[in-house]
Amino acid sequence: MADYTKMWSELGLDLKSHDALLSILGSAYGDIFLSQKNRPGGMKYFDFVMSEVHGLRIQELMEAKAQGRIVVGSYCVFVPEELILAVNGVSVGLCAGAEFNFEGAEEVLPRNTCALIKSAFGFKLGKVCPYLEACDVVVGENTCDGKKKAYEILGPMVKDLYVIDLHQTKSEMGRALLKEEYRRFATKLENVSGRKITPESLKKGIEIVNAKRAAVKRLAAIRAADPAPISGLDGLLVNQVFFYDDPIRFTDSVNKLCDELEDRVKKGMGVVAPGTTRVMVSGCPMAVPNWKLPMLIESSNAVIVGEESCVGERGTRWLTESKGDTVEDLLDTITERYFSIDCAVFTPNPSRIDYVKEMAKRLSAQGVIHYGLQFCQPYIMESGPVEKELEKSGIPTLRLETDYSQEDAGQLKTRIEAFVERLEKK
Amino acid sequence: MADYTKMWSELGLDLKSHDALLSILGSAYGDIFLSQKNRPGGMKYFDFVMSEVHGLRIQELMEAKAQGRIVVGSYCVFVPEELILAVNGVSVGLCAGAEFNFEGAEEVLPRNTCALIKSAFGFKLGKVCPYLEACDVVVGENTCDGKKKAYEILGPMVKDLYVIDLHQTKSEMGRALLKEEYRRFATKLENVSGRKITPESLKKGIEIVNAKRAAVKRLAAIRAADPAPISGLDGLLVNQVFFYDDPIRFTDSVNKLCDELEDRVKKGMGVVAPGTTRVMVSGCPMAVPNWKLPMLIESSNAVIVGEESCVGERGTRWLTESKGDTVEDLLDTITERYFSIDCAVFTPNPSRIDYVKEMAKRLSAQGVIHYGLQFCQPYIMESGPVEKELEKSGIPTLRLETDYSQEDAGQLKTRIEAFVERLEKK
Ligand code: SF4
Ligand code: SF4
Ligand code: SF4
Ligand code: SF4
Repeated sequence: MADYTKMWSELGLDLKSHDALLSILGSAYGDIFLSQKNRPGGMKYFDFVMSEVHGLRIQELMEAKAQGRIVVGSYCVFVPEELILAVNGVSVGLCAGAEFNFEGAEEVLPRNTCALIKSAFGFKLGKVCPYLEACDVVVGENTCDGKKKAYEILGPMVKDLYVIDLHQTKSEMGRALLKEEYRRFATKLENVSGRKITPESLKKGIEIVNAKRAAVKRLAAIRAADPAPISGLDGLLVNQVFFYDDPIRFTDSVNKLCDELEDRVKKGMGVVAPGTTRVMVSGCPMAVPNWKLPMLIESSNAVIVGEESCVGERGTRWLTESKGDTVEDLLDTITERYFSIDCAVFTPNPSRIDYVKEMAKRLSAQGVIHYGLQFCQPYIMESGPVEKELEKSGIPTLRLETDYSQEDAGQLKTRIEAFVERLEKK
Repeated sequence: MADYTKMWSELGLDLKSHDALLSILGSAYGDIFLSQKNRPGGMKYFDFVMSEVHGLRIQELMEAKAQGRIVVGSYCVFVPEELILAVNGVSVGLCAGAEFNFEGAEEVLPRNTCALIKSAFGFKLGKVCPYLEACDVVVGENTCDGKKKAYEILGPMVKDLYVIDLHQTKSEMGRALLKEEYRRFATKLENVSGRKITPESLKKGIEIVNAKRAAVKRLAAIRAADPAPISGLDGLLVNQVFFYDDPIRFTDSVNKLCDELEDRVKKGMGVVAPGTTRVMVSGCPMAVPNWKLPMLIESSNAVIVGEESCVGERGTRWLTESKGDTVEDLLDTITERYFSIDCAVFTPNPSRIDYVKEMAKRLSAQGVIHYGLQFCQPYIMESGPVEKELEKSGIPTLRLETDYSQEDAGQLKTRIEAFVERLEKK
């Protein structure tokens, strides 16, 4: 790996902490991903991306900035990459999946905050996230109480925090509010970048993002095959890299991986033996490097065949219609697309349950594991009704509530193994 | 006390649990309220109301229902009593302040849910709340994640759950959404009651509620006197009874109490010795019978002079303008009034901090105790910035996070005593 010390130092990173983080990350990656058997060759690209996640990719961001492009960071799939691309900006995900500097985070946040938020603050306060430091604008959104109020605290810590307001119900007023907010965000992006959004630039943005989502949807569809052609860990990794990589190169790499996987399927080849217990995961997003639950599941005689999550199908299942000749028209189709997202922060949220059922059927998942991050009110509140409804439809469901620590790993594994046994017996 | 067994039984209460609850409540009330020294004579009315809170008042509700009036229950000060009165309905508060049947509540709610919500569910599932059972409509609102999602679970358990959507920011779109929702709620009330809201009936509703709020504001102003003419426990009690009592009788009783207190002030009489340390409380609402924190504070050589809370000044400080000749105009003034409420669920929420400062000054409070219910993300998230800002302005602040259990009472008392000592030394 090249020496990026100068770049990291210029970004204001705490080099010592950052080195420590990278070395833990690197060895975890080796243990968890590289040790998998029978991996598709197409995953090599993603291994490379991960090995350069704080290196080459950040260098690319710095080069983009040098060319006058803006870097826009976000914590939620409600921030439209289409608009960021329409001003020739670079979109990066900032959600964080590691238990790093939680002590620091707990000095400014309540202890009873979900790990995703604590991790984002731990990274910021510990100065170890080059993505965050590279951002020209950091975008928040009024989703859950935790994030909504945390942005008030984050505001003074970053260069330019911009918050998108969101609806809470899927009403006509809610839709109007979302559109108005996207219009306001478009103007913000124009002001920061100094570029005007045109129908052409927005259409191009929509196309690039659609292609990226379509590639991931293609991968999701292939995972329906039995035996599963790719592990859940690798499937999740692709969905995680989605938020960091150059979109065009990413799309290309996912499609190449899909070619290979389709070939595998044709030959009846799988990453696991035929008949391996198939589960899907539903719930809170898993940000890099949060691989805790999939690792526990896939070391318990089961394979994960899909993720109903924002780092998964909830984030990618809808494409944006590229219909209309004005920015206003295109803002409508963008609003329409994002308005469909069935995050648990909305009330009521019946389409999520319907989709979990549909996914389980399509992917021949024998059971669903609901993943709730501790202190995440929206998803944990919703998990009761989700479980009830799924079990009623004959889909066994296991509700887990956990965080980023390894303390409960043994206990979780016991519960997962018991669940997998229950599925095997069916 | 009369025998209400038949009424309770007809309401479907679990008589055994309900008896147990009433007897605990009665003895707690005796210990906490009746044992206070030097109480104003005007508190006798409130003692009577409390002794009949599940008796005479419920009988009144049943009589009102027999006369064709509807009973509407709510969990938040965002539900306009003005509109309920405009259809000749009766408004009752349903928030619950006792740790009752939390095991039952935790079967349907996450363990990490605030005590207010758990208590409401504990009461419902344990069948001990005659107010809830008497309701024709139960109104929820999209405020915090906890309540927003809990209403989805409550829906099938009550006769008619109606949810008001709310804004998350104080934007023009937010205001429009609130007005639209109040319009929708007005129609709902018309449908359930079979009565039309007229400019006259709505003006009358506004006047009744204004008079009630003005009386409580008068009480709040009197509490600025030194020595404090009334205890914080009694001040809170008046604010709690606000949500249950007949509004006209309540207004009258508060004004009588105020006459007496003004007389006390004129004579320099207080409920505590002059110079007793004065604190104010800010944060989450305290619903009946949640008297834990004021009891701990007022047994620690301090007197509470005001509550910045929805059961307190946040709930009563704004009156509704009775301007306009059409329902539409009056809906505007109602929207305006409620749009001002600075609950921590809004972002950003700077006016709340400003008001806490203003209150502390007006009431000559020497310090502020911030009350956060455990797992209440909005208030606990906001408590950090509140503390920082107050301390910067020279107002010592103590942040407490607690629930309804008595387990932490000793530990809280130690912290409160240390805080009062800090204030005494200033
Ligand atoms: S789970 Fe909800 S809040 Fe989180 S990224 Fe997805 S849409 Fe945003
Ligand atoms: S996991 Fe839940 S609490 Fe955490 S940021 Fe996402 S929605 Fe909010
Ligand atoms: S604190 Fe907020 S949610 Fe609770 S009653 Fe007040 S306004 Fe409603
Ligand atoms: S105390 Fe907090 S979490 Fe509980 S109902 Fe009120 S705003 Fe919601």
